[in-house]
Amino acid sequence: MKHARRALPLSKVYGLLEPGPVVLLTTAHKGRPNVMTMSWHTMMEFEPPLVGCVVSDRNRTFHALKSARECVIAIPTAELAPAVVRCGNTSDAGIDKFEAFGLTPAAARKVSAPLIEECYANLECRVVDQRLVTRYCFFVVEVIKAWIDPAVKDPRTIHHRGKGRFMVAGKTIRLPSKMK
Amino acid sequence: MKHARRALPLSKVYGLLEPGPVVLLTTAHKGRPNVMTMSWHTMMEFEPPLVGCVVSDRNRTFHALKSARECVIAIPTAELAPAVVRCGNTSDAGIDKFEAFGLTPAAARKVSAPLIEECYANLECRVVDQRLVTRYCFFVVEVIKAWIDPAVKDPRTIHHRGKGRFMVAGKTIRLPSKMK
Repeated sequence: MKHARRALPLSKVYGLLEPGPVVLLTTAHKGRPNVMTMSWHTMMEFEPPLVGCVVSDRNRTFHALKSARECVIAIPTAELAPAVVRCGNTSDAGIDKFEAFGLTPAAARKVSAPLIEECYANLECRVVDQRLVTRYCFFVVEVIKAWIDPAVKDPRTIHHRGKGRFMVAGKTIRLPSKMK
Repeated sequence: MKHARRALPLSKVYGLLEPGPVVLLTTAHKGRPNVMTMSWHTMMEFEPPLVGCVVSDRNRTFHALKSARECVIAIPTAELAPAVVRCGNTSDAGIDKFEAFGLTPAAARKVSAPLIEECYANLECRVVDQRLVTRYCFFVVEVIKAWIDPAVKDPRTIHHRGKGRFMVAGKTIRLPSKMK
């Protein structure tokens, strides 16, 4: 299913990534788009939203991030889980992973990396800090444009528990919180 | 409820934090234990397990981490959600948050910060990299001892979606994955 896409205020981005969903990370390097699966990320600042993420230097995405310094973080929900896992299982060589796994790239507004139409949220990002790249493959990126499908209220995000076990987001509870 | 506590191999730690649960972070500074609520963390290496976490410099924990360089990451489940939120809502001054919120500190094996008996998993950590502390309040810690209640198979972890909305872990699915 392709999702509607409405701009999301940058101040609301943290609520998408804080719960720890498995995400897809797209890049474009020398005109060729690519996509990988990622679970190691954290919010680092509310606004402008900063996200830290670990991208192994065994992935082609690592080199694309280092040189193009742009990416899109696309957030899938449970119906995409098979595609997400196959994407994570596939090495970078040769195949067009978008076509192979039924993911539709769409032009982003501010970066060359593509959005993914089947994801309910897409975050256009640029790399802002590479100081921990050499030691930990850890990139700090800034979200510069955010898109969401406003129809999705309680997204059934997927969360990796290791070795192919994924927790699917359950019910939402509200508790009186002063937290942002 | 207090949990049983068995040592967990360090190679399995990533599966606890990858899904993005809200955690409690304990420290001990000048003999005084403290605890805060944290959602901004990511795995950075499988083994030894490295975890990156953002601790605001408005928290007393920030200064304890900087000087004592030790902490415990304790992972709560849904029945602790009210205590977790109250802990997150409470500033550091004065009160004993353990007593106030019904959390029982227990001696850790390798660090001075306490474990929390009501949490199903506890990770003893030491700070190993502070290069991004000044800019982002981002600490890299190494898990040096891990504890888990082996009876808890599919923990009902809680995941913050912003402004007091928490997603409670739903069902677990398995998909054929080569991912660790």
